[in-house]
Amino acid sequence: MLDYAALSALAAVVREGSFERAAAALHVTPSAVSQRVRLLEERVGCALVVRGLPCRPTDTGQRLCRHVDQVRLLEQDLQGALPALAPGGGVRVTLPVAVNADSLATWFAPAVAGFAADAPVLLDLAVDDQDHTADWLRRGTVLAAVTGTARPAAGCNSRPLGAMRYIAAASPGFVARYFPAGVGAASLAQAPSLVFNSKDALQARWVQRLCHRPVDLPGHRVPSPQAFVAAGLAGMGWGLHPLALVDHHLRDGTLVALVPDTPLDVPLYWQQARATGQVLDGLTRAVVAAAAAALRPA
Amino acid sequence: MLDYAALSALAAVVREGSFERAAAALHVTPSAVSQRVRLLEERVGCALVVRGLPCRPTDTGQRLCRHVDQVRLLEQDLQGALPALAPGGGVRVTLPVAVNADSLATWFAPAVAGFAADAPVLLDLAVDDQDHTADWLRRGTVLAAVTGTARPAAGCNSRPLGAMRYIAAASPGFVARYFPAGVGAASLAQAPSLVFNSKDALQARWVQRLCHRPVDLPGHRVPSPQAFVAAGLAGMGWGLHPLALVDHHLRDGTLVALVPDTPLDVPLYWQQARATGQVLDGLTRAVVAAAAAALRPA
Repeated sequence: MLDYAALSALAAVVREGSFERAAAALHVTPSAVSQRVRLLEERVGCALVVRGLPCRPTDTGQRLCRHVDQVRLLEQDLQGALPALAPGGGVRVTLPVAVNADSLATWFAPAVAGFAADAPVLLDLAVDDQDHTADWLRRGTVLAAVTGTARPAAGCNSRPLGAMRYIAAASPGFVARYFPAGVGAASLAQAPSLVFNSKDALQARWVQRLCHRPVDLPGHRVPSPQAFVAAGLAGMGWGLHPLALVDHHLRDGTLVALVPDTPLDVPLYWQQARATGQVLDGLTRAVVAAAAAALRPA
Repeated sequence: MLDYAALSALAAVVREGSFERAAAALHVTPSAVSQRVRLLEERVGCALVVRGLPCRPTDTGQRLCRHVDQVRLLEQDLQGALPALAPGGGVRVTLPVAVNADSLATWFAPAVAGFAADAPVLLDLAVDDQDHTADWLRRGTVLAAVTGTARPAAGCNSRPLGAMRYIAAASPGFVARYFPAGVGAASLAQAPSLVFNSKDALQARWVQRLCHRPVDLPGHRVPSPQAFVAAGLAGMGWGLHPLALVDHHLRDGTLVALVPDTPLDVPLYWQQARATGQVLDGLTRAVVAAAAAALRPA
């Protein structure tokens, strides 16, 4: 068997970001943590942690951390069946999950919160663009992800969740100022757009579909779903808003669709590492049920 | 004078994340972008961009990008005075600003959105913990920041904005389950907390003040202000919530304060690079006015 004290030390350094904080979390000295990680690196034959502020895992280190998470989840199942095995003090397993920001801000948070309130785990949620959360699975940083990618990452199952509907919208004043003669490639090249961050391709994708060619879009970057809506309401730019966040603004006229009946539906998938036990299966059921209620059939 | 075509190419590579996208944005070929950046690196005598996915600036590269932003803002002032100088097509300057997530999700977004709707700039907002946004200024990644640090970064002015009030709160069911005999070090060591991410020290700071010693807090990581509130409402954990986001939940009883009358006030500051012209001064006025209305006197 592998040296699980050493693996726990590695996982703690990666989770906490420093040897000192890992030592505090494990109730050992920093030099003990340092020695365990060094012995593990000698055994594996390569560096596992890039020492820095914060400490980051190498690819191999990341893969080992994911193994630790998987073993811990399997231990959790065992403790459910054999309570005598459970450590005193209710130590909780960490379950790392990646999710896109718009899902987290809408249907995902209440679903997993309800699950996590009763499950013996600590959720470690990471946010990235839906076109990039699959990379987190591939790198082994998370055990499950909401992603825009249907094809399962190695060692993972994938299932469709439904589609998130986006509406290209802006304030009525913004539309009057920038699109007095309608929405086209020329006006879109002048009107400031909103983009979530440099990974956000939704605006470009919608424009490509509308104009049948790419258009250079001037863009404000607003990396917060609610601030994105606030920016739209204040007339700062047009952007693709999740219908779930702007439905009432569209109904009361504080936001208007740029072009009627041109929603963008983004299909989402739930990918989870295989063989990780009942806790992750429970999370999967909660996520799939919430998605079925909140998303559109793909 | 420096070679501003080369500097613009560098800034575009950093902003867009790749030589190809930078080339598209500048309407030149990728090899032209590559050559300009290489010549600049030869002149400066060190690497300016770490080639990767995405491309990232080195420290020197970052400093040069900030210089480009500053020059562009000064050009913007000039064009205001001499409209004949303005390039055709309304090219907009990018203004990079760092802000903490809770400010962006509450008072900051409407304030800067109103400003940006009329200013000839594109805002590039970056989100980080209030204890870390000052690093963005120091590294030269942004020209202004909402930060928890009063001491101005080199080349920056600092002014107090007021304090953001946080309340340690949880759902009534969570309090009944984990704190039946009150809140203390022993119960806090068992009750799952909510933390925004690994940089979020608010929960630990509040506990230190309450218990006069640090306590190891089991924590879920929920990196979204609204999902953080949703997690609290669902009974997933206790956490420090911005009063502005949970005021109505505290009033209708769906969240309750863990300990009455123990708010945590986090003073915030606005730091901006000096000598960057009227546009940034306009943003400063908008931010200071919004903070005066939304935050508590420090």
